[in-house]
Amino acid sequence: MSHWSLLYDEFNPEEQELREALCTLGNGYFATRGAGTEAVADGVHYPGTYLAGGYNRLDTEIAGRVIENEDLVNMPNWLPLTFRLPESDWFSLQEGEILSYRQELDLRRGILLRTIGFRDAQGRETKVEERRLVHMGAMHLAAVEMRLTAENWSGEVEIRSGLDGLVTNEGVDRYKELNSNHLEPLEVEEFGDDTIYLKVCTRQSKLQIAQSARTKVFVDGQLSQRLQSYLKEPGRIFQEFIVDLAMGSEVRIEKVVSFFTSRDNAISECGLESRNAVIRADGFEGLLESHTQAWEHLWRRFDVDFVHSEPAETDRTELILRLYTFHLLQTTSTHTMDLDVGVPSRGWHGEAYRGHIFWDELFIFPLLNLRLPEITRSLLMYRFRRLDRARIAAKNAGYRGAMFPWQSGSNGREESQEVHLNPKSGRWIPDNSQLQRHVNSAIAYNVWHYYQVTGDMEFLSFYGAEMLLEIARFWASIATYNAELDRYEILRVMGPDEYHDRYPDDEEPGLNNNSYTNIMAVWVLNRAFDVLKMLPEERTNELLESIGLDQREIDQWRAIRKKMRLVFHGEGIISQFEGYDKLQEFDWEGYRQKYSDIQRLDRVLEAEDDTPNHYKASKQADVLMLFYLFSSEKLKKFFDQLGYPFEYETIPKNIDYYLKRTSHGSTLSRVVHSWVLARSDRVRSWKLFCEALKSDIEDIQGGTTPEGIHLGAMAGTVDLITRGYTGIEPRDDVLWFNPCLPEKMAKLHVHIRYRGHALEVEVTSDLLKVRALKSREMPIKVGFKKKTHDLEAGSTVELSLSS
Amino acid sequence: MSHWSLLYDEFNPEEQELREALCTLGNGYFATRGAGTEAVADGVHYPGTYLAGGYNRLDTEIAGRVIENEDLVNMPNWLPLTFRLPESDWFSLQEGEILSYRQELDLRRGILLRTIGFRDAQGRETKVEERRLVHMGAMHLAAVEMRLTAENWSGEVEIRSGLDGLVTNEGVDRYKELNSNHLEPLEVEEFGDDTIYLKVCTRQSKLQIAQSARTKVFVDGQLSQRLQSYLKEPGRIFQEFIVDLAMGSEVRIEKVVSFFTSRDNAISECGLESRNAVIRADGFEGLLESHTQAWEHLWRRFDVDFVHSEPAETDRTELILRLYTFHLLQTTSTHTMDLDVGVPSRGWHGEAYRGHIFWDELFIFPLLNLRLPEITRSLLMYRFRRLDRARIAAKNAGYRGAMFPWQSGSNGREESQEVHLNPKSGRWIPDNSQLQRHVNSAIAYNVWHYYQVTGDMEFLSFYGAEMLLEIARFWASIATYNAELDRYEILRVMGPDEYHDRYPDDEEPGLNNNSYTNIMAVWVLNRAFDVLKMLPEERTNELLESIGLDQREIDQWRAIRKKMRLVFHGEGIISQFEGYDKLQEFDWEGYRQKYSDIQRLDRVLEAEDDTPNHYKASKQADVLMLFYLFSSEKLKKFFDQLGYPFEYETIPKNIDYYLKRTSHGSTLSRVVHSWVLARSDRVRSWKLFCEALKSDIEDIQGGTTPEGIHLGAMAGTVDLITRGYTGIEPRDDVLWFNPCLPEKMAKLHVHIRYRGHALEVEVTSDLLKVRALKSREMPIKVGFKKKTHDLEAGSTVELSLSS
Repeated sequence: MSHWSLLYDEFNPEEQELREALCTLGNGYFATRGAGTEAVADGVHYPGTYLAGGYNRLDTEIAGRVIENEDLVNMPNWLPLTFRLPESDWFSLQEGEILSYRQELDLRRGILLRTIGFRDAQGRETKVEERRLVHMGAMHLAAVEMRLTAENWSGEVEIRSGLDGLVTNEGVDRYKELNSNHLEPLEVEEFGDDTIYLKVCTRQSKLQIAQSARTKVFVDGQLSQRLQSYLKEPGRIFQEFIVDLAMGSEVRIEKVVSFFTSRDNAISECGLESRNAVIRADGFEGLLESHTQAWEHLWRRFDVDFVHSEPAETDRTELILRLYTFHLLQTTSTHTMDLDVGVPSRGWHGEAYRGHIFWDELFIFPLLNLRLPEITRSLLMYRFRRLDRARIAAKNAGYRGAMFPWQSGSNGREESQEVHLNPKSGRWIPDNSQLQRHVNSAIAYNVWHYYQVTGDMEFLSFYGAEMLLEIARFWASIATYNAELDRYEILRVMGPDEYHDRYPDDEEPGLNNNSYTNIMAVWVLNRAFDVLKMLPEERTNELLESIGLDQREIDQWRAIRKKMRLVFHGEGIISQFEGYDKLQEFDWEGYRQKYSDIQRLDRVLEAEDDTPNHYKASKQADVLMLFYLFSSEKLKKFFDQLGYPFEYETIPKNIDYYLKRTSHGSTLSRVVHSWVLARSDRVRSWKLFCEALKSDIEDIQGGTTPEGIHLGAMAGTVDLITRGYTGIEPRDDVLWFNPCLPEKMAKLHVHIRYRGHALEVEVTSDLLKVRALKSREMPIKVGFKKKTHDLEAGSTVELSLSS
Repeated sequence: MSHWSLLYDEFNPEEQELREALCTLGNGYFATRGAGTEAVADGVHYPGTYLAGGYNRLDTEIAGRVIENEDLVNMPNWLPLTFRLPESDWFSLQEGEILSYRQELDLRRGILLRTIGFRDAQGRETKVEERRLVHMGAMHLAAVEMRLTAENWSGEVEIRSGLDGLVTNEGVDRYKELNSNHLEPLEVEEFGDDTIYLKVCTRQSKLQIAQSARTKVFVDGQLSQRLQSYLKEPGRIFQEFIVDLAMGSEVRIEKVVSFFTSRDNAISECGLESRNAVIRADGFEGLLESHTQAWEHLWRRFDVDFVHSEPAETDRTELILRLYTFHLLQTTSTHTMDLDVGVPSRGWHGEAYRGHIFWDELFIFPLLNLRLPEITRSLLMYRFRRLDRARIAAKNAGYRGAMFPWQSGSNGREESQEVHLNPKSGRWIPDNSQLQRHVNSAIAYNVWHYYQVTGDMEFLSFYGAEMLLEIARFWASIATYNAELDRYEILRVMGPDEYHDRYPDDEEPGLNNNSYTNIMAVWVLNRAFDVLKMLPEERTNELLESIGLDQREIDQWRAIRKKMRLVFHGEGIISQFEGYDKLQEFDWEGYRQKYSDIQRLDRVLEAEDDTPNHYKASKQADVLMLFYLFSSEKLKKFFDQLGYPFEYETIPKNIDYYLKRTSHGSTLSRVVHSWVLARSDRVRSWKLFCEALKSDIEDIQGGTTPEGIHLGAMAGTVDLITRGYTGIEPRDDVLWFNPCLPEKMAKLHVHIRYRGHALEVEVTSDLLKVRALKSREMPIKVGFKKKTHDLEAGSTVELSLSS
């Protein structure tokens, strides 16, 4: 493994699915799946695309029914490109002998390479070399190049290049009973001897998708375009070319493809645009050059540079961090800035969760904010556009303000299923996950931190403030007053820990006073007051009027933010929720012996007719999220505001308590746990970080990665290195630092953006250096240990960490 | 006329078309035409909607051919709402006697009201009262309310409410030979006893458009929903209700309509969303309330307050300024911020110019920048999304960089026709207007000034800088070196004055060294150097790499911006173009006697087999544009940079020279001329301003207003009052003022935004007061007479003008 290449040097059909997910190519717009591992000839790919929709909840209950609302739908496959030798079938890795095999995902250039030495049943040896890219500069273009060398034979080779719209959604086993056929064929057409065109339409959302492909055939460098035939049927079109290949000669085929949808901006009709785009497009080499440059620019912003005392660990860590950054940037990139899309928790890489948007943004945006905040802005706009729908949801549930859904799709309604299938027991069980109202706090948190990093007052004024205020309002309306305690409570919700959705033996779902939820609600209310003061007076008044917020309601917020209830047990343990202490301790040892893997304890127990609701056992310990999101100083302020004690020991005590009681059933939990230990137990923190790093590359949840990567965990690990270890915190117009490198890390260098500045940050064990690149931006303030320092463009601040 | 109402108190069929254009309702998204003057019962409305496309140039040449590319297409009509009395036909103003008639466009609330007293052939008297709104808060909604009072009769009334997709484009006489039928029926359906639904699709661009209508019938306040029948056919659907009306009773019908297209954000399928939207929508009164509030907020930002010594003039001027602001805000509003649209020169009010985008932004953006800069940002994004297309255009024409089209439509290609029809002679004549390359400088100018006002570095960095650099590059590549003169020249283009498109007796179109074009090119090159210095270093490098701009090319820019050629004649007259002095003087007096109106001198002369190309006669004197865009200090700097003399007299001398030689054939010219005289001849300036004010309200170009308002002139007049007379100029991070009120204006008060601040500006003859409203924004600098003053949020700067 080089630092920039994910390399597989033998063919391994068993690992195919995982490799496919890890080698997916995309560019945010042109999401493409499976660009990697399957036989060159198979051409079976299921590239996902963002669409309108979101599965209809009822439909997921009733298997086999027509899905009426689409979300992640596989787009027409642009990759079919294969060949056959005389008197043979179309090339297949399954028939014949693989002499050599090498597959490489080149992260630096964003291309997938494959070289195969192959001997067929007749003894003919052929070298097959392939390069693929999905263009990171020109969002509508992708290209594949295939070179065949006739090693020990000569003859007439047939080449087939096509566009296939008859793809279905079959990437997730447990969804197989659902309707998987979402595309309706509209048009296929050929143009001249090199171009074909396909247009399809999604069945429910009526999104039109057009692709065009221009295929050119070269023999030993000379164009040799002998078109033999077309193969057309509704939804598919193929061209077949003929080439005379002499022994030792090489045929090179390049296929350049364009992809447009009817929702694109700056188009007339999507089919017309797709045809024009391939006519105008550069050849493979030209595209490769501009594509590589676009990636080079991204890497300048995103790459992390550090020196670890164990070189092997440095190399491997660096590679994985790059792989994860690569997938993040393929999912959400400069191309998504102008699209109405959010960040799906599984990327566009697989069909799991159907492209729905959860709360993963909380783990992803900090990374984007400090590098390409324009991306965050556009992703927050995805939420803003659905604010009205969230208001309707709140109203329908009897609340005020805006209640964003736990799973968000095309039009912002709640897309969470009401039942889900346990593949272990085969049973459909009620799914209360939509009671995770905390997603609203994550949205407010993200609005606030985008503003902190960018100072983008226009965004806050036009979009952010309204979301924040409406979410605050929701929390104030869901909170109920407990007169006995003179405290406000939030009842019958779920925290991020999905193992607990109700009290044992209670009919009604939901839990009371989930600490994470309650504290986040208070945080949102605090920020709402800030926002009302920060905006230009006239805008505040406009907002108050248009959302109808009056003084009486604001006064109520004031009361709630001082009297929100928190529940404790034992000696200063923040209860995950009220009554958590009454649950049984779980037999961790026993179960670890009984089952090899208890990460998904919920499924294990359900299959035993038991449920984690009975136990002090978490999928992810959500109390610890508080230490992930807030510094101890900030938490102390919170607790003071609420009139609860907070001591120095509170944090380590709670970490210790909950870490013992979690199964790490979420890929996010290790990131959080590593983060919260970063300052108190650097060795253990690094160990957890290394485990978190493995989550996708080793598919540690057993089979979930091929259904889609885990984007929150991917971004979270990169963020942990860059933000966690530098202690970067943009707050009150100051960029605060609080570096703390892992024991074996000698040096860390990151490149960030803050308030229009590009900053180079270098941390060693005893020095912090922050350099602002030249520009005309106003000076900023850099903070360390309660002191702030002015930093002007073109100058450097150096701070000793040892003093 | 009150200050807020455009009032017509008698029915006047002759004025119908003009009234219709002036009373158009819209909200940026839901563009609606003809909401005003026609008979209540006719229900014939042609509301325009922005679409993909732009007429195919060839198609406009060959009359009658199917239009293959749509731009402004009339959207389905949502207004059909009429009634009939027993044994009568459907209500029509043409049959019977109009007893009273009053129509009022209420600008403050954004509603159109009409009250008609009517006596039919049987002597039955009915009062008809109507209110209409297109919601300025909820972008997808519109509503109409009709109340009928049976004054002297009783009986069964039939009410018909419908959605009509069989509309055509027939609003512009001279386009009538072209295909006018752009909509293909898809679906019609009814839901329950109050809701109907229609879906159509544009023929070429395949944009889907869905409307739903919910109609409720009340008799004397009680719901009385007796559905009699549906009338359905492809493309149209109507409901008919029956009501028993007693003498003196009132039936009230409210129809709430929703409108969605397949390009909307945050939707699943547009039909589904439109149906859900009317189900959830408030009733008429509720909608009116929220709609009025949205307008109130807009007026707080946009209304201009001034005291003129003649109260009647104040009132009328105020009303017209409000009417023009109203139409601007109906065309481009907070709703267009999230759409891929530009500002069409004729609004969405009529079909003239087919919704194409020209250079009018130059006159419109200054107004928006200082009030709702987020709108400008989104309109600049319309250009950015078409940057690639502009690059292709430049390349195809043999240039580098980006060449934006003179007429821009859906996908950014050149939409200008190659011939146009002279209605005076009936001849098709070549149209070289696309040689107006100066539109590129307007785009660069707008990018720069948006940044100056907002300080939005992220926009400049991601979008603006690239446009500016590519336009600079275009100018550098179109400029040719004249070795003899050691000067650069721009040959064979057209300036804004469309009367001159070639030299007399020259086959090839275009003119050499148009002064406006050449100076603007230099201005763009200057700004390109600024931008390269301002951006964060790394972004500059990224940009240079990605557009492939190297030092050699930049060095060439440096040379051009010092050696661009300007041509002069007489004593310091800047020649409109090289060779202008050789043209004949035009017989203004003779022609003014011969023709009553010579504003469109081009058509007059063409009909006489002559052409303005022979004469010193301009549609608009484009040299004067320089004094409109730049202060004399700035121009002096330019001339110094180029090595040409510039004296104090240059400006008045040129104004005097060209004003004598212009026919005001463009609605923009009076705005420009009034502006340039504002400081030297206040009386004449005010006179020209008053004429400019009339351009649309009196349709001074004779028949062009009904085909669509003139948005540049509308915005320009408002901007003249607010920016021209205050002398506001955001430059080098300072907000400069240079007030100069018209003689009879005692006081001017405007409300502007600058760098996140909301500022109240008050000017009298001797005092300038600038107050910054409370907020948390950083202090700004206010400049007056070469001195700058710090202004903090919450404080005021007062400056004496007399000292």
